[in-house]
Amino acid sequence: MTGHVTCFGEVLLRLATPGHRLMVQSDSLDLVVGGAEANVAAGLASLGHEVKLVSRLPVGPLGDKARSAVAAAGVDTRHVSRAPGRMGLYFLESGAGLRPSSIIYDRAGSVFASSSPDDFDFAAALDGVRLLHLSGITPALGPEGCALAQAAVAAAQRAGVPICFDGNYRALLWDSWDSDPRRILTGLMQSAAIMIGNHRDISLLLGETFFGDGADRRREAADAAFEAFPGLQFIASTARHVVNAAHHRIAARVDSRDGAHQTAEVEVTGIVDRIGTGDAFAAGVLHRWLQGADIAAMAEAGLAYTVLKHSQPGDMCRVGQGELDAFSASGGDVRR
Amino acid sequence: MTGHVTCFGEVLLRLATPGHRLMVQSDSLDLVVGGAEANVAAGLASLGHEVKLVSRLPVGPLGDKARSAVAAAGVDTRHVSRAPGRMGLYFLESGAGLRPSSIIYDRAGSVFASSSPDDFDFAAALDGVRLLHLSGITPALGPEGCALAQAAVAAAQRAGVPICFDGNYRALLWDSWDSDPRRILTGLMQSAAIMIGNHRDISLLLGETFFGDGADRRREAADAAFEAFPGLQFIASTARHVVNAAHHRIAARVDSRDGAHQTAEVEVTGIVDRIGTGDAFAAGVLHRWLQGADIAAMAEAGLAYTVLKHSQPGDMCRVGQGELDAFSASGGDVRR
Amino acid sequence: MTGHVTCFGEVLLRLATPGHRLMVQSDSLDLVVGGAEANVAAGLASLGHEVKLVSRLPVGPLGDKARSAVAAAGVDTRHVSRAPGRMGLYFLESGAGLRPSSIIYDRAGSVFASSSPDDFDFAAALDGVRLLHLSGITPALGPEGCALAQAAVAAAQRAGVPICFDGNYRALLWDSWDSDPRRILTGLMQSAAIMIGNHRDISLLLGETFFGDGADRRREAADAAFEAFPGLQFIASTARHVVNAAHHRIAARVDSRDGAHQTAEVEVTGIVDRIGTGDAFAAGVLHRWLQGADIAAMAEAGLAYTVLKHSQPGDMCRVGQGELDAFSASGGDVRR
Amino acid sequence: MTGHVTCFGEVLLRLATPGHRLMVQSDSLDLVVGGAEANVAAGLASLGHEVKLVSRLPVGPLGDKARSAVAAAGVDTRHVSRAPGRMGLYFLESGAGLRPSSIIYDRAGSVFASSSPDDFDFAAALDGVRLLHLSGITPALGPEGCALAQAAVAAAQRAGVPICFDGNYRALLWDSWDSDPRRILTGLMQSAAIMIGNHRDISLLLGETFFGDGADRRREAADAAFEAFPGLQFIASTARHVVNAAHHRIAARVDSRDGAHQTAEVEVTGIVDRIGTGDAFAAGVLHRWLQGADIAAMAEAGLAYTVLKHSQPGDMCRVGQGELDAFSASGGDVRR
Amino acid sequence: MTGHVTCFGEVLLRLATPGHRLMVQSDSLDLVVGGAEANVAAGLASLGHEVKLVSRLPVGPLGDKARSAVAAAGVDTRHVSRAPGRMGLYFLESGAGLRPSSIIYDRAGSVFASSSPDDFDFAAALDGVRLLHLSGITPALGPEGCALAQAAVAAAQRAGVPICFDGNYRALLWDSWDSDPRRILTGLMQSAAIMIGNHRDISLLLGETFFGDGADRRREAADAAFEAFPGLQFIASTARHVVNAAHHRIAARVDSRDGAHQTAEVEVTGIVDRIGTGDAFAAGVLHRWLQGADIAAMAEAGLAYTVLKHSQPGDMCRVGQGELDAFSASGGDVRR
Amino acid sequence: MTGHVTCFGEVLLRLATPGHRLMVQSDSLDLVVGGAEANVAAGLASLGHEVKLVSRLPVGPLGDKARSAVAAAGVDTRHVSRAPGRMGLYFLESGAGLRPSSIIYDRAGSVFASSSPDDFDFAAALDGVRLLHLSGITPALGPEGCALAQAAVAAAQRAGVPICFDGNYRALLWDSWDSDPRRILTGLMQSAAIMIGNHRDISLLLGETFFGDGADRRREAADAAFEAFPGLQFIASTARHVVNAAHHRIAARVDSRDGAHQTAEVEVTGIVDRIGTGDAFAAGVLHRWLQGADIAAMAEAGLAYTVLKHSQPGDMCRVGQGELDAFSASGGDVRR
Repeated sequence: MTGHVTCFGEVLLRLATPGHRLMVQSDSLDLVVGGAEANVAAGLASLGHEVKLVSRLPVGPLGDKARSAVAAAGVDTRHVSRAPGRMGLYFLESGAGLRPSSIIYDRAGSVFASSSPDDFDFAAALDGVRLLHLSGITPALGPEGCALAQAAVAAAQRAGVPICFDGNYRALLWDSWDSDPRRILTGLMQSAAIMIGNHRDISLLLGETFFGDGADRRREAADAAFEAFPGLQFIASTARHVVNAAHHRIAARVDSRDGAHQTAEVEVTGIVDRIGTGDAFAAGVLHRWLQGADIAAMAEAGLAYTVLKHSQPGDMCRVGQGELDAFSASGGDVRR
Repeated sequence: MTGHVTCFGEVLLRLATPGHRLMVQSDSLDLVVGGAEANVAAGLASLGHEVKLVSRLPVGPLGDKARSAVAAAGVDTRHVSRAPGRMGLYFLESGAGLRPSSIIYDRAGSVFASSSPDDFDFAAALDGVRLLHLSGITPALGPEGCALAQAAVAAAQRAGVPICFDGNYRALLWDSWDSDPRRILTGLMQSAAIMIGNHRDISLLLGETFFGDGADRRREAADAAFEAFPGLQFIASTARHVVNAAHHRIAARVDSRDGAHQTAEVEVTGIVDRIGTGDAFAAGVLHRWLQGADIAAMAEAGLAYTVLKHSQPGDMCRVGQGELDAFSASGGDVRR
Repeated sequence: MTGHVTCFGEVLLRLATPGHRLMVQSDSLDLVVGGAEANVAAGLASLGHEVKLVSRLPVGPLGDKARSAVAAAGVDTRHVSRAPGRMGLYFLESGAGLRPSSIIYDRAGSVFASSSPDDFDFAAALDGVRLLHLSGITPALGPEGCALAQAAVAAAQRAGVPICFDGNYRALLWDSWDSDPRRILTGLMQSAAIMIGNHRDISLLLGETFFGDGADRRREAADAAFEAFPGLQFIASTARHVVNAAHHRIAARVDSRDGAHQTAEVEVTGIVDRIGTGDAFAAGVLHRWLQGADIAAMAEAGLAYTVLKHSQPGDMCRVGQGELDAFSASGGDVRR
Repeated sequence: MTGHVTCFGEVLLRLATPGHRLMVQSDSLDLVVGGAEANVAAGLASLGHEVKLVSRLPVGPLGDKARSAVAAAGVDTRHVSRAPGRMGLYFLESGAGLRPSSIIYDRAGSVFASSSPDDFDFAAALDGVRLLHLSGITPALGPEGCALAQAAVAAAQRAGVPICFDGNYRALLWDSWDSDPRRILTGLMQSAAIMIGNHRDISLLLGETFFGDGADRRREAADAAFEAFPGLQFIASTARHVVNAAHHRIAARVDSRDGAHQTAEVEVTGIVDRIGTGDAFAAGVLHRWLQGADIAAMAEAGLAYTVLKHSQPGDMCRVGQGELDAFSASGGDVRR
Repeated sequence: MTGHVTCFGEVLLRLATPGHRLMVQSDSLDLVVGGAEANVAAGLASLGHEVKLVSRLPVGPLGDKARSAVAAAGVDTRHVSRAPGRMGLYFLESGAGLRPSSIIYDRAGSVFASSSPDDFDFAAALDGVRLLHLSGITPALGPEGCALAQAAVAAAQRAGVPICFDGNYRALLWDSWDSDPRRILTGLMQSAAIMIGNHRDISLLLGETFFGDGADRRREAADAAFEAFPGLQFIASTARHVVNAAHHRIAARVDSRDGAHQTAEVEVTGIVDRIGTGDAFAAGVLHRWLQGADIAAMAEAGLAYTVLKHSQPGDMCRVGQGELDAFSASGGDVRR
Repeated sequence: MTGHVTCFGEVLLRLATPGHRLMVQSDSLDLVVGGAEANVAAGLASLGHEVKLVSRLPVGPLGDKARSAVAAAGVDTRHVSRAPGRMGLYFLESGAGLRPSSIIYDRAGSVFASSSPDDFDFAAALDGVRLLHLSGITPALGPEGCALAQAAVAAAQRAGVPICFDGNYRALLWDSWDSDPRRILTGLMQSAAIMIGNHRDISLLLGETFFGDGADRRREAADAAFEAFPGLQFIASTARHVVNAAHHRIAARVDSRDGAHQTAEVEVTGIVDRIGTGDAFAAGVLHRWLQGADIAAMAEAGLAYTVLKHSQPGDMCRVGQGELDAFSASGGDVRR
């Protein structure tokens, strides 16, 4: 039995330099489709859930490409509407070793960022689903984005659909307009049952600093969030230590109101693609939540799925349930 | 002895589907740098002339890529300034057979289109040169573009530098703002010594139709242009018949005040890349003009260079003077 | 308003040599997903129709790949079931000039070919649809294939859904078992409203030769088919003349009981991929039939869509309705 | 002076996803030719030995490809016969980091697996050679495979040619038919002078468990094998610890009746291709045996050659004798 | 029954720009192995003959590459010796349309060109063969090359092996040293039974001009050659008309002392690779000669095999006997 | 304010196997332009300096390619002259893991190596510059190379331009002719203000061994060099420990007459391309020297720039000043 989930957010095209090249050295760019919420949708669909994406894309070949990639991942795209306008893009200069990858956003003025709540039929898209997933990127896009996120949240509340909210704080986006991120985000969080975010995100929401690396600080932050947001039931987060572009160390944690599970740290080497790994974490956590599992299972699946995402190219995690279940942090030889 | 030329215009990145793929089928896009005036600059540099490009590019990897490609073509880029902002882009869905290629522009709001005459030092860029080349694309970008083109033309006039103006009429651009193309373009043409454009361009400029395919109509149009624009000395144009995406038939023509040369028509098959072929035609014509050749030589070189451009990928013609001189419309076997 | 269509048949992986290489010269093979009925489904979905595919694929990565590609084309894959077993494959050695492409089938014993009618829920898959499309390949797979095709046809009859049957006669498949193709195929044709096939297919069905190239012979064959199959309303066919691997000449024809429309012949040059062009023809014809158009429109759209298919790689035609409507047999320049 | 060796076994085509992609993400597959015994043949040929392969391939382009690749490696293919039928295939989904690679076999019913001893002229193929190499994969293919392996072994005995037998136990293959692997394998081992296999393989052969990681257990297993198989002179094995898909630790060991040599463990990082590394180990061991070297040299060369194999793509090790001799486990900078 | 042939000549590496790119646009070059005589060897081996190549290559990876490619084509490389030194190279800038491909040779001072007759064991290489094939390229390499060609011819005469000599006149090579091509070539031709060359080659050999395009002139030239070279039995030649880089028209002809066969002209379009097509012609002619066929069959097979070579990449024709026998100048659809 | 620098040396084409392939496995080679001094020029230009290259290239496409690549890097190529002759080449067989990369030089007899001082206008090229950079490769090319290096040094002395000399000792080159490297190199070093080289280079120059790994030995060597070369002000060097092909450990050091700065050692993993990293070190050191920074800044920038070079493909470091300034040896996550 799989869970029905609706994700809401923008779909972007990623144009990345191949072979660890600098942009100045590249005569072709790898074309990949992503976007935080679409990535979560793709991950959940790859894990066997029925998932709808609510989004808006430009009319024409670029929008066709984005829609096709989302459908290829097994996501229902009937709620992806189309309109004239431009596609949201980002460029990726792929790093290696001690040269970090770098992203150049070119998403301003996209069809999605310019749309209004009336362009979406949230009620239909939420009919019969068990979860709405959205993220802090949509409100960061501007006043229109805030209205979109608020409308989605309101519709979910009306429909009695629980909400998962991924902080995904992007300073660049919030700074590009006359914004008040704390007010907007805490407003949206009032309705959230699940939060994807760590103590830094909570610091930001509550205007109180919970910096530091100990488990105590993390629990302190979680307690504060549970107090501030009465509907909140779970907080899922990762802790990432970057050694170099291909070698990270990651641990995961899920806090509930009455407990917490912190995983062991995993050495992630040979990283193929780091983009979308946070969204894969969310998908792994939600996968177990939809199965009714406990917080330990949520944290371990989130960790496993994000680690597996590092091993494949693209924004979306396409790894299936079989590989998730077979995951071992101590590696394994070729499977015959 | 080579001629010193200054070209002024926007540089764009082209993102094209490889292998005749539709966008929806493409997992990578070929990255090429172009732009009408930069293409003319590259062609003239490949033919051995000293050429400067005056332009403006975004700070960052995308602008670096564009600057590097222009420099690789042998063009002096010291007058290409840099500023924060976005890069002008266009996407190309590559056609084949009876499916034409199609272009999706995404150039609105670029650094170049948002710049003002004060951002350029035209006087320095025109110092000691024998020709300024610009096109009708710059004024089509909007009121800022008009101001840029007018400022460039005014500077050339002050410096006594002859002007070559390529019509390059792009209805989509002109239609996207409250424009009066005829007024703007005829204003700019007042200062032109050389025009790249056919009887349809002249019709558009003079508000008088010279449509039809005979040589008489073309001469009639040329006569009207020479009358309307007293400084105009040469009008260079091509006539293109499209059989399919890889097979065109092209002839060229140069009109002077007292004569005309019309070339034979050439069968152009196995077309590798049609984009930039008009700019290669301009480069071929100007190459001979800079050498002091007559209109027959101008027309033949323009034709040969545009035909050769069809045989190589990319917006810029990188074919050298040796191949131009060795060109034969009746083909040739492998050269050992 | 778009038509709801159900297609039933096997999905295959195609492994093709790139760059006109011989197999012996290839270090990689291009991987494409196809199959006659899936191709028709993809074409109709690209043209805006709601289409379901009924099929069966192996559990595991190869089946995942096939399902994903069908979904990417916009086809509903909820009726594509999965089972342990092998994937149907074919290898393609890509030709050029006067060296024809050649196909090596490796599809025997596939999950689909080994399945039984009970493995499919035809009633559900046909609920609310306006057409069932299937082809002569399924019964050619063996006794199991015959049972599958017969069950699909029977279910459509029970549901009152009209049937389109594409002859797709593959001698190699029929010859590989103790088969009686005429008996099987005429049985299936008893229920068909639309037939995709020419006078050679009809000759084969009726055991009467209608060979020869004149329009009279074609009409004679059509009359015989209309007499033999009382439910048959339309016969759609193409006539293809092969000049070389990249240059064919194609005309199309649709016969109804009281009329016929024969198109002009189109020169198709620069052929990128010939595989799946017959399926694109069927999709073009059915597209107009679903729109309620007349036989002239059906024949012209079939011709246009098959010609456009030759211009893109892959088995499935992904060209959209816009390009179909803009099609011109006299070519066209880059669209800006 | 190089040794003449005959290898007997099936040649397969490998179709692998490129760039650490999942199958579902791949639009092309890398085509490589391999097979355990062909890989040993290629390794020995690359190291300067004269090697014949005895095998059977399908008529047509796929068989041509396989034969050509074996010949390209310097192996004599005159004893590779051809017959109608299908090619043995396997698909490889290439792993990375903590996602292991996985193999999907599609080799059932291949021309080789369906052949009989009469299809091969073992006597001619063994004329004048110093060693016959075969493996436990051939008998695992089914009753036909058992007959093939037994016939090859019998012919070698008749010709007085020593036999090297690589266990290569593949449970999947043995489990797919009503097999008795221990009886078959111990029968074949009766004639072996050299065994490639570790204490787990010996456990399997003798029905006695020698599990555990100490050198003592390994020697105990070797002693048991030497007792069970009177003609056996050398047992060569590796011990592999998998850290992740690109990082293994490997040591090698050769036991003789009166001694053993165990190498130090080598850190193998940056693994390019793990497939065929066991066969490269066998080739390295046999290379020194053919040169008349002692067990220490055999173990060290086996280790070095398997480590070097990890650094190049493809099933076959193509590294030459110069690189083998220059191998250093402590790495080395670019050689100029 | 296949014929045993020995070919003697240099093997080169070809480095070609991909995708019709200019060298200045290329970031990779396609690596192909060829050389006139090795190409004939590969063609004959692909057609089922047993062929040995006598040549000399540098020690190291470049020589290994060349040897491996020749072996991959099925040619016996045991007479390809190795020595320290440089590899002969050529670069190819791939043309398209009306831009011809151009070759840049970089073969001076290669291991082969620097070798002496003592470096080869011609007697062993000619033992039991029915034909020695060599070409005018070897003597053109310099005094050492002349000595090599003369030694090969002398050895063939001693062994009673008929000689096929392909003119392959390369002015650039002959002009680079103080050469007397006519003296050298007529000397070598004294021993030839078969000549590959047209009336222009004969003009050059005899110092008498047989230029002009009629069949009469060709026969006149043939008669003169038969008179000048008493052992000569067959003269095989092609007539090629170049329309553009991808479209040639070719006819073939074989003259014997008492007759001639001239084929119809074939339209060769969609040319993939023109290099090596002359060698494929020779292979096709010799294939039938080895089968004891008449001059009509020799000419038709030469024509078919050269036409087929145009349809595949690489210097060597790898097309097999099946495709040669199935060749049709009127094209053909996909073979299933 | 940027510094004006002139670099003098040969430009080479590099032809490298892709994807960690052996040469024998490669069907294409990656084409890259480099050369020790051109690499330093490109690095300095990428860091914002105005740099001229003085060199000589063959007429034709290969020389065009080299010139274009140098210009693309932002280097002024007006002092790169052209002449008939051959291009200097090198082949790279790309290593992985414990298989080192290996280089095959094919540069003998190149246009540059055959040129004489009169072919260059050193006076013009040195006009107004603050530094001349050259290396020990030029004199190693032969007597002509020695004359070239000596002429460049003499011209710099006449113009009062300080000289940076990079030892770059290549035994293979010096050993290929009757050379006396110590005499030549110490002669050139008499004029150097900056030396790039370690205690081993100094040992070689002074005929005194300073081997060993301690900082004391390095300072001892530096003191000896400062004594031997009175104009010498700075000695910059790296110490590299190779773990495997993708993992090195590097530290840097700059000695002045009255002090030294030794950096911490950096772990460099995921190495993409090791070639040219020494030249990037020189560029980083000179970048800070041109900015008037102290030896600590010189050493740290040299280290950072060489480490960054390991993360991008190609001989030339194209990393910009922004990335250099942001470099952190403790890595960093994706920059958004």
